[in-house]
Amino acid sequence: MIASSALLTDRYELTMVDAALTAGTAHRRCVFEVFTRRLSGARRYGVVAGTGRLLDLVERFRFDDAELTWLRDNSVVSGHTLDWLANYRFTGTISGYPEGEVFFPGSPVLTVEGGFAECVLLETLALSVLNYDSAVATAASRMVNAAGNRPVTEMGSRRAGEHSAVAAARAAYIAGFAATSNLEAGRRWAVPTMGTAAHAFTLLHDSEEEAFRAQINTLGTDTTLLVDTYDIPTAVETAIRVAGPGLGAVRIDSGDLPVVVAQVRAQLDSLGARDTRITVTNDLDEHAVAALAASPVDSYGVGTSVVVGSGSPTMGMVYKLVAHTNDAGEWISVAKKSVDKASVGGRKQAYRSLDAWGTARSEIVALDAHQMPGERALLVPLLVQGEIDEQFRGAAGVQRAREQHASSVAELPAEAMRLTRGDPVLPTVYR
Amino acid sequence: MIASSALLTDRYELTMVDAALTAGTAHRRCVFEVFTRRLSGARRYGVVAGTGRLLDLVERFRFDDAELTWLRDNSVVSGHTLDWLANYRFTGTISGYPEGEVFFPGSPVLTVEGGFAECVLLETLALSVLNYDSAVATAASRMVNAAGNRPVTEMGSRRAGEHSAVAAARAAYIAGFAATSNLEAGRRWAVPTMGTAAHAFTLLHDSEEEAFRAQINTLGTDTTLLVDTYDIPTAVETAIRVAGPGLGAVRIDSGDLPVVVAQVRAQLDSLGARDTRITVTNDLDEHAVAALAASPVDSYGVGTSVVVGSGSPTMGMVYKLVAHTNDAGEWISVAKKSVDKASVGGRKQAYRSLDAWGTARSEIVALDAHQMPGERALLVPLLVQGEIDEQFRGAAGVQRAREQHASSVAELPAEAMRLTRGDPVLPTVYR
Repeated sequence: MIASSALLTDRYELTMVDAALTAGTAHRRCVFEVFTRRLSGARRYGVVAGTGRLLDLVERFRFDDAELTWLRDNSVVSGHTLDWLANYRFTGTISGYPEGEVFFPGSPVLTVEGGFAECVLLETLALSVLNYDSAVATAASRMVNAAGNRPVTEMGSRRAGEHSAVAAARAAYIAGFAATSNLEAGRRWAVPTMGTAAHAFTLLHDSEEEAFRAQINTLGTDTTLLVDTYDIPTAVETAIRVAGPGLGAVRIDSGDLPVVVAQVRAQLDSLGARDTRITVTNDLDEHAVAALAASPVDSYGVGTSVVVGSGSPTMGMVYKLVAHTNDAGEWISVAKKSVDKASVGGRKQAYRSLDAWGTARSEIVALDAHQMPGERALLVPLLVQGEIDEQFRGAAGVQRAREQHASSVAELPAEAMRLTRGDPVLPTVYR
Repeated sequence: MIASSALLTDRYELTMVDAALTAGTAHRRCVFEVFTRRLSGARRYGVVAGTGRLLDLVERFRFDDAELTWLRDNSVVSGHTLDWLANYRFTGTISGYPEGEVFFPGSPVLTVEGGFAECVLLETLALSVLNYDSAVATAASRMVNAAGNRPVTEMGSRRAGEHSAVAAARAAYIAGFAATSNLEAGRRWAVPTMGTAAHAFTLLHDSEEEAFRAQINTLGTDTTLLVDTYDIPTAVETAIRVAGPGLGAVRIDSGDLPVVVAQVRAQLDSLGARDTRITVTNDLDEHAVAALAASPVDSYGVGTSVVVGSGSPTMGMVYKLVAHTNDAGEWISVAKKSVDKASVGGRKQAYRSLDAWGTARSEIVALDAHQMPGERALLVPLLVQGEIDEQFRGAAGVQRAREQHASSVAELPAEAMRLTRGDPVLPTVYR
């Protein structure tokens, strides 16, 4: 963790501050919104994640001597801007969808209000965090749906940058994963951690039996033994002979899983190990998990596909200025007119419209704060005038986000669970 | 940056150490190798990146009080293992392809030698770093090839986790990008940084003209003005009127680029701004860059596609035990026999075979260290008995890797530059 998060940003955020300070426009009040134009991967819904991490990073967005010296030595901004940066602390207000909430195209998932300069500085960092974490949570939520009541563990750390791996473990947990292999996610966010042994452990020993004995001596018979280093039927026989029928679980990491799982289940049962669970971990994604629904699998371990967003490794969220004051203090709604990237000006409110049975029917994005009957307001204050609402961060914030996610998904129509590509399950209605 | 990198790892690395210490096998000498079974995305070659970052992280792989306390409180390992971890420092030897070198399926890009426990602990971290950084560098190298002599800037920080963004900027630079938007990459690795203004800056001001004047007042006429917030021809006219024909560049971030670029070039020329450059930044990947080869573009800015590996966001490298000693001190070659994930046992050497014209013809992976005439040895020592070779890290290491990459690519057959999916441009020959 870097003490200051202030250089985790694009150079142009600072050059804009520099020019706006000179022009006298840096202090105009502004509203920036984070939203997506579409759901990457033609998903049915998106999942907001990263908010709690972002709040921590905003707090640490300070320019200390090390940052100021580097900016000065590299002539990134003028001297008066260095002075302004030295005193920088975000004193505005951030509201947003609570972490774990689902979202749709146009949903204003984060609204940042304050002076132009203090808000524009947060653009890159806010998008880095929300785009990655939300991509992972969106993919993870589909995997959890596909797995039904069976637990899913995140084990993709080795397929993501070493810090993104921690964020991915956190995001997957928010989306309903049961645990992670990543220890730092355990320490920092209290995500439950899991793991026993890799093929290297079996290969290190003079025989598979010695390896199994070594593992059981230390981790007990409730451990999970990896049975596909050499020949699976032989390994299963050895595992139960060594551990007894009380062995916790066997893990299968290769092969044609529906066939292999059925064979292993039959073998375990024939050996009296009826309570020994089967966990599978072979390049699974939501489709592979769904294809195993009828197989006697007890739990899934998902690696690569969840940490890379299962085909959509970033969310496509943008951070756009939608309104500002002019010199007379009047609010002006603004929007880019570019042919393929137009946006809607003005500060938005958002509501989810529910039918009489409590099922979500549409995403309302409104230019006024008028909540209609049967609508649930989606924006909550996260950081008010520089002060973070503590309930949204730390391990407690993660737990809260996990609950938020479960209840938001429960509200969606059943078609939300479809894994095929398609339209968002709720239409976004501008009001 | 976390003081200790030791928990950026999977729990099972620690439970294996725990069990091996109990079994008396933790100190067996081992050789682990990092390699890929195939090139993700059916690329013609891969690019090794992340090595210099990994060396820093290995040095910081220490279990301090904070880590030990958390491991104890969560019963991750036994007490005697905590004592062992408290004294942990990697004292083995790491050799590998120098950062920036190209690689192929089976290339032993990293070899880690030492006791089982000290080596297995590094698995997750080594793969996290190499898989992400190499995926970015591999995609970036294709973009640089596609751009020919025109410079390419990396500007995808907002589409990657906030720390991965820094690693991506570094990896893209190694692969030949000219600069990055990411300030932390500038500070930490001396990658040149670039950036001027976003659409928000234009929208903030009362008119596009005021915004352009504000930018030029601070950044000078050699700056780059963004001309697609409203109407491009109007913006270009305003830009030259405000800045004069000495304006540095205009940036176009939307629209049908081949058409728009030609129009803007004609307009700039007609306004006498013949030296004003055109930079384009609209969702480019290597294919879009190639499609602009005949357009009067002066430079490219690539965002999303490079930081997500342009369709292959992780490299698929694995870290496998290939040999260990037994209790008699004899070396045993080992390999997993799993049906779809078999590997080749034994410590490997690697050579690139070149023809009489200096063009690479095959990747030789050999079980003995016998270099034939016309072969270039690929493995170099990176860290010997715990001591890092300083030339491979820091900003100097990045510069070295960039040169390594340029010379390695120059050696490849011309077909290596093809952007279509296909077989690796060099066959891997096991000897």
